[in-house]
Amino acid sequence: MKAKRAVITLITDFGGQGEYSGAMKGVILRLNPACQIIDITHEISPQNILQAAWVLKNCYAYYPPGTVHLVVVDPGVGTARRAVAVKKGEYSFVGPDDGVFTWIYRQGKASVHELTDSRYHLSPVSDTFHGRDIFAPAAAHLSLGVKPASFGPAVEDPVSLEWPRPTLSRGTLRGRILWADSFGNGMTNISREEFGPGLEGRGVEISGKGWRIKRISRTYGEGKPGETMALFGSGGLLEISINSGSARAALGLKAGDPIVLKLK
Amino acid sequence: MKAKRAVITLITDFGGQGEYSGAMKGVILRLNPACQIIDITHEISPQNILQAAWVLKNCYAYYPPGTVHLVVVDPGVGTARRAVAVKKGEYSFVGPDDGVFTWIYRQGKASVHELTDSRYHLSPVSDTFHGRDIFAPAAAHLSLGVKPASFGPAVEDPVSLEWPRPTLSRGTLRGRILWADSFGNGMTNISREEFGPGLEGRGVEISGKGWRIKRISRTYGEGKPGETMALFGSGGLLEISINSGSARAALGLKAGDPIVLKLK
Amino acid sequence: MKAKRAVITLITDFGGQGEYSGAMKGVILRLNPACQIIDITHEISPQNILQAAWVLKNCYAYYPPGTVHLVVVDPGVGTARRAVAVKKGEYSFVGPDDGVFTWIYRQGKASVHELTDSRYHLSPVSDTFHGRDIFAPAAAHLSLGVKPASFGPAVEDPVSLEWPRPTLSRGTLRGRILWADSFGNGMTNISREEFGPGLEGRGVEISGKGWRIKRISRTYGEGKPGETMALFGSGGLLEISINSGSARAALGLKAGDPIVLKLK
Repeated sequence: MKAKRAVITLITDFGGQGEYSGAMKGVILRLNPACQIIDITHEISPQNILQAAWVLKNCYAYYPPGTVHLVVVDPGVGTARRAVAVKKGEYSFVGPDDGVFTWIYRQGKASVHELTDSRYHLSPVSDTFHGRDIFAPAAAHLSLGVKPASFGPAVEDPVSLEWPRPTLSRGTLRGRILWADSFGNGMTNISREEFGPGLEGRGVEISGKGWRIKRISRTYGEGKPGETMALFGSGGLLEISINSGSARAALGLKAGDPIVLKLK
Repeated sequence: MKAKRAVITLITDFGGQGEYSGAMKGVILRLNPACQIIDITHEISPQNILQAAWVLKNCYAYYPPGTVHLVVVDPGVGTARRAVAVKKGEYSFVGPDDGVFTWIYRQGKASVHELTDSRYHLSPVSDTFHGRDIFAPAAAHLSLGVKPASFGPAVEDPVSLEWPRPTLSRGTLRGRILWADSFGNGMTNISREEFGPGLEGRGVEISGKGWRIKRISRTYGEGKPGETMALFGSGGLLEISINSGSARAALGLKAGDPIVLKLK
Repeated sequence: MKAKRAVITLITDFGGQGEYSGAMKGVILRLNPACQIIDITHEISPQNILQAAWVLKNCYAYYPPGTVHLVVVDPGVGTARRAVAVKKGEYSFVGPDDGVFTWIYRQGKASVHELTDSRYHLSPVSDTFHGRDIFAPAAAHLSLGVKPASFGPAVEDPVSLEWPRPTLSRGTLRGRILWADSFGNGMTNISREEFGPGLEGRGVEISGKGWRIKRISRTYGEGKPGETMALFGSGGLLEISINSGSARAALGLKAGDPIVLKLK
């Protein structure tokens, strides 16, 4: 049996129950007993491809060269959506071709191959669980040195998500809540990269349904317990937060809620 | 100090807090620093032995030969229930003798030994935490090559759970919800193995308290967002699901709820 | 690249989302690809330093010599609070100097150094995420054999939390709920070490808002399903529990709630 030291990470929306991630981990270790499996998260909101893509973007490049990142947020399992392996720079990626690799594609040239060769699948392949039957074996084979091109034909048009851009008009920025993180912070589609230079140090008023914030803070430490705050988090998105609390619970934030930011 | 490469998996109902699983992992690594510990889940519903047995059944055989599966769902800790090590084929298992290994016993001949030899326990053994004091050390010793017979006497009558079988009468199958998985899907006691051949492709009506489904789908992709669906999941049980939602939350499903399936 | 077999554990309040712990794990593995990362928990109640300190106390000494315990519960990130590395006996610890190492300091002489040397930080260091930028790299360097004194100056007055002691007056012990564990058990500040000898085997009445318990049980097995119980858990604190249920949910327990224990 072959075995090669490597890191394989997991990002899924399987939740904590473990039957699904447990089977995937077994498949990986059976093919490559020397790899280290790292749980990034199994708590992506069910079928939230955008959130998975964002979490991946914020983590992947901290890992050692050669790491394989396996992402299974796969609402299209059992339909015609493709399964792919991606190579970009020092890293490999495996998952459904549904947009989870959006930021990988944006950050430079990637080579993408479809996972069609059944020699690299479990047999039989189920209708409902490609994570175990197709993605996990591909990740293990990549960690052993198999090239993505061995899995199947090149994909020239991999799926990328449109980032839901905020609109700016006459000093008013209209954005929205994308998801809540595990602290209950509401993550918005207003990024520091795009808007930070124009916002930091400026007077602003940010508001949503029943709440209003008068400034953008630099750290949580600037707020008082219970204070509603806005700040650019370590991932680079403007977050709506309650100091020492959950903004999701206290303000009733949910994905899609509009927010309005006025420059003063 | 001995050390030997091996995989030890964990299935528990300890939840996410980590004090308990953290101590077990330390005990294992102290005895065998070269083993890789894999979290299958710590989110079994509290004291739900049947669910733990089912998750184990659906995962264990994907792991490499030699893997030790450690299962701690142990409502009887501190009572006279036995602690056991099980060897079946290429795998070993450690846990309470309360039914968590039901499907292991059903799938072929297993040898079972009681964990009575105190040389393989932590000292002192607490009343409330045999996971740390008895099960974790046994798993680590198994991973180092200790034979189950070293731990104590053979057990000839290990505990097996009765599977709560549905009843079939005049074209009506009466079953029940066993538990909800982490997506909120309601898992029923109607298995594909037993009833799939008679159901697939047939007209059916499945109903519970306040909901009704007209067919058995093959994949989630066949449903519309918000649609109530029934399908045989990758674990082989008929699941009651809401497409892109939680059936537990939306339909109020809970363990024990009756369901009725009528053939048309 | 250096690589050295070692165990690094994680205790955080990041929740299950994984963006934060995923980045920390990547930073660690990039510096020391041969270390094994163990999740103790990411489910500490947000910013509950006392709970993190207690979980650490109950786990750390089960791990092999040389283990590095990384604790990130850090409400003061971005303020002047210090970041520290601690060496005590066979173990090392890394985290904010906010009290998470209270019990490490109580259990014997520890050497503490501040993490000021920027050669051991990621660059740039963010305002909001020292877990990734300062603590994770320090843990990895410790696992590779770097001495804590290399990171920065000795700290002579590290922060220790006061344990909120119960008061005893005329046969009445007044304590409080500190947090709920993941089963929903309410953990109190009444420890077996301090009060167990006087309580075990004595008639007692324990009460809180709307509930009353007449004895201290030895094991969960002594109770009936649904029974409200009190017992000293494996961590050594008196717990208020519902047999086969959640005391937090059923009794409405929350951190800070008073409890009264009367000797009979």
